[in-house]
Amino acid sequence: MAYGDLSLHTDKYQINMIYGYWKKGMHNKRCVFEAFFRKLPFGNGFAVFAGLERIVNYINNLRFTEEDIAFLAQQEENYDPDFFEELRKFRFTGNLRAVREGTVIFPNEPLIQVEGRVFEAQLLETAILNFMNYQTLVATKAARIKQVAPNDVLIEFGTRRAQEADAAIWGTRAAYIAGFDSTSNVRAAKLFGIPCKGTIAHSWVEVHRSEEEAFKNFADVFPDNVILLVDTYDTLKSGVPNAIKIGKYLEAKGKRLKSIRLDSGDLAYLSIQSRRMLDEAGLDYVKITASGDLDENEIYYLKTQGAKIDIWGIGTRLITCADDPALGGVYKLVAKEENGSYVPVIKISSNPEKIITPGFKTVYRIINKSTGKSEGDYVADVGEDVKGQHRIKMFDPVHTWIYKYVTNFEAVGLLEPVFVNGEQVFELPALEEIREYHKSQLNLFWSEYLRRINPEPYPVDLSEKVWNTKMNLIKQYTEK
Amino acid sequence: MAYGDLSLHTDKYQINMIYGYWKKGMHNKRCVFEAFFRKLPFGNGFAVFAGLERIVNYINNLRFTEEDIAFLAQQEENYDPDFFEELRKFRFTGNLRAVREGTVIFPNEPLIQVEGRVFEAQLLETAILNFMNYQTLVATKAARIKQVAPNDVLIEFGTRRAQEADAAIWGTRAAYIAGFDSTSNVRAAKLFGIPCKGTIAHSWVEVHRSEEEAFKNFADVFPDNVILLVDTYDTLKSGVPNAIKIGKYLEAKGKRLKSIRLDSGDLAYLSIQSRRMLDEAGLDYVKITASGDLDENEIYYLKTQGAKIDIWGIGTRLITCADDPALGGVYKLVAKEENGSYVPVIKISSNPEKIITPGFKTVYRIINKSTGKSEGDYVADVGEDVKGQHRIKMFDPVHTWIYKYVTNFEAVGLLEPVFVNGEQVFELPALEEIREYHKSQLNLFWSEYLRRINPEPYPVDLSEKVWNTKMNLIKQYTEK
Repeated sequence: MAYGDLSLHTDKYQINMIYGYWKKGMHNKRCVFEAFFRKLPFGNGFAVFAGLERIVNYINNLRFTEEDIAFLAQQEENYDPDFFEELRKFRFTGNLRAVREGTVIFPNEPLIQVEGRVFEAQLLETAILNFMNYQTLVATKAARIKQVAPNDVLIEFGTRRAQEADAAIWGTRAAYIAGFDSTSNVRAAKLFGIPCKGTIAHSWVEVHRSEEEAFKNFADVFPDNVILLVDTYDTLKSGVPNAIKIGKYLEAKGKRLKSIRLDSGDLAYLSIQSRRMLDEAGLDYVKITASGDLDENEIYYLKTQGAKIDIWGIGTRLITCADDPALGGVYKLVAKEENGSYVPVIKISSNPEKIITPGFKTVYRIINKSTGKSEGDYVADVGEDVKGQHRIKMFDPVHTWIYKYVTNFEAVGLLEPVFVNGEQVFELPALEEIREYHKSQLNLFWSEYLRRINPEPYPVDLSEKVWNTKMNLIKQYTEK
Repeated sequence: MAYGDLSLHTDKYQINMIYGYWKKGMHNKRCVFEAFFRKLPFGNGFAVFAGLERIVNYINNLRFTEEDIAFLAQQEENYDPDFFEELRKFRFTGNLRAVREGTVIFPNEPLIQVEGRVFEAQLLETAILNFMNYQTLVATKAARIKQVAPNDVLIEFGTRRAQEADAAIWGTRAAYIAGFDSTSNVRAAKLFGIPCKGTIAHSWVEVHRSEEEAFKNFADVFPDNVILLVDTYDTLKSGVPNAIKIGKYLEAKGKRLKSIRLDSGDLAYLSIQSRRMLDEAGLDYVKITASGDLDENEIYYLKTQGAKIDIWGIGTRLITCADDPALGGVYKLVAKEENGSYVPVIKISSNPEKIITPGFKTVYRIINKSTGKSEGDYVADVGEDVKGQHRIKMFDPVHTWIYKYVTNFEAVGLLEPVFVNGEQVFELPALEEIREYHKSQLNLFWSEYLRRINPEPYPVDLSEKVWNTKMNLIKQYTEK
């Protein structure tokens, strides 16, 4: 699958920095970078990780062509031509660990970790963040929508309002991971194997001489998949009565009208009236589809009002994540090699929540064996033996007097090796497998953490070792 | 320039509809579709059209490969195999007219008009809207930002937060059209020839043993382009003093420090203090760059507080258009062929502003020759001789008692032929030319229409002929 040549899909400063490292002979210095985010979007209690497949493809295809190099050579007179030799032979040779797509994730825990030469680890930043931020954002939004309509059919409809072509396809894939059933985008269907759905637009009705003729023609052409858009002229006076005629027409041919679609007007009122009219005509099996500026809030309120909608076509607000259109994921240096071993690195900020957690770390989900539910996530130094401990102290990293001891737990590592010494060792799961995994993830959490509004904050704690390292480094820089 | 194969970048219902038209022998029926939007984003008084180059490339490359066809064949058992022959030979054979990129545009006027066989005109909808909606949205946001900082340098910095890879490149191109000066995205720079800028990240400072060493190394490597990020540890106690040292170091070598960059903390306070420190050190030529969640509102308030910032790096809020992340552009059937001539088509809606303006139309900008300013836009039937009129009546299409007569005007047609009988006749202008054209467009309007907050609504009026057609059709459907 080729999605275009993305080797230059990076910020200029990455190129300038790797040039600088190379020029100063520092380019093989080893470093550890971590990607994480600080704040959950939409006021949600969790996020859903997505973007890894795209990142893996990007890294596997990361090569500088002669055309790329010729372009870069024009950009800075200063570049030493020998640098281009380094680019020509560039291959990712480092280690990358990441959480699986579909994992339920939280702020301030490592999601992607790159360990390698600073030359390569630095270069990956922009693309990793671009892919992770958007895809994780949409998967999270989709999970919220799935939560309010768990038993309905959810179709992603947003291509025309997506922020350009890539957003349409990768956004719909992310939505599918989090429980959407299908997409309207044909290219996404082809690339990813997502079921693809589509019916008719108003123009189909208008091109015909009458609504009834338009409906009948569609029913003749697709007798097994008739979904009729009923709001071109007047939903209840014209659209639904004509749809009922077609329902009868199909019954006479041994077929069934699948659904009507409402795309404007008051969806609560119109769906209730349409349901009644369909039922009275003996068409109680005909589903009602609705579309038009929907998201989890709109759907929730429509359901509260008794709307009779079975299938939701969800576009703009999902694909652009309209109420929070960017996840602020960052990629930060956490450790660097000094005299053959890693030392933790910190960035101080006057903004307390922006101070990173230094060190080469990993993260475990602490599952209580008696309940099967998670007690929290636990960020530890890579060298710590968390699995082997009998009891761990889980304390809030800000309000440290809030703590609990957990025993009888299983510590499940969330980061999995994806690249080892530049070789991809992780087999990308099939999309269906990712969906199933995501569902199983949700079962690990008490519903209080997953609540759509005012969820209980889920604990993401630091080991005492990691916490002490952080405090010591802060002190060291502050007292400088 | 290849941006990937986009022939299947469409909604499934377009494929099903064109199949239906073909199956019913209606596929060569000629139709007119118009793309327009109803509501200005961001509370702005105007929008800036963008997306045409992408659309032209899409149409020129619109071919169904055997792989595409094999995929479609699996999608619906019902497809008649002869349909695939029709797809194999598919070429756009219609006419497309559009406003130029960079044009200042308004709601409810045709921006793109496709006249051709319903088979092809219908198929184009999804991609046209996807490209026009996003690119026009970003160009409009960028124009707002340019308005509050007309003499500063504006750099687009948003790739890591963009909604996937295409948004990063097409968004930055749109921002450049509306007056941005450069981008951080290397791929966009290569594809579009936009100037590309970049400096260093916090990691550059942290990988070194000290901030001073990091700054010096960068200055050694890029002596002609030194921009130093000063907030890694402490902006005023460490970053700026170290930058001043490097300023002196560069002076001793006959070079000049270009800029410092602030990326966190209070940008008003820090920029004022940094400016003072730099000036006192004799480095009054060193510019101050700022970045971090900026947009036109933030910049406006920072300027009100006396912030001393010369260069703005603008990311997330521009590239995602965070305060209004989708333009609701639509693509509607306005006329269809009946017995060899076009008849207007309407879609009735219970929502008054959603009723379209029917008919095969065009749009003129009515320039008052004595002031050089526009009196409003005027939507007329294609057959009307607007240019030849001595006096036109411009009346509000809703509040029709509000009107004026305009004489001594030049009627400038906004729609230009882009494709004629499937042949591209419009030469895509160079990007620099589009920028210049956009600037000249802004001069056509009184500043009241361009005001960033509560602008005066600009008149987009209908000719009496178009207005009468609309009223008659509404009446006809309502009284049915």
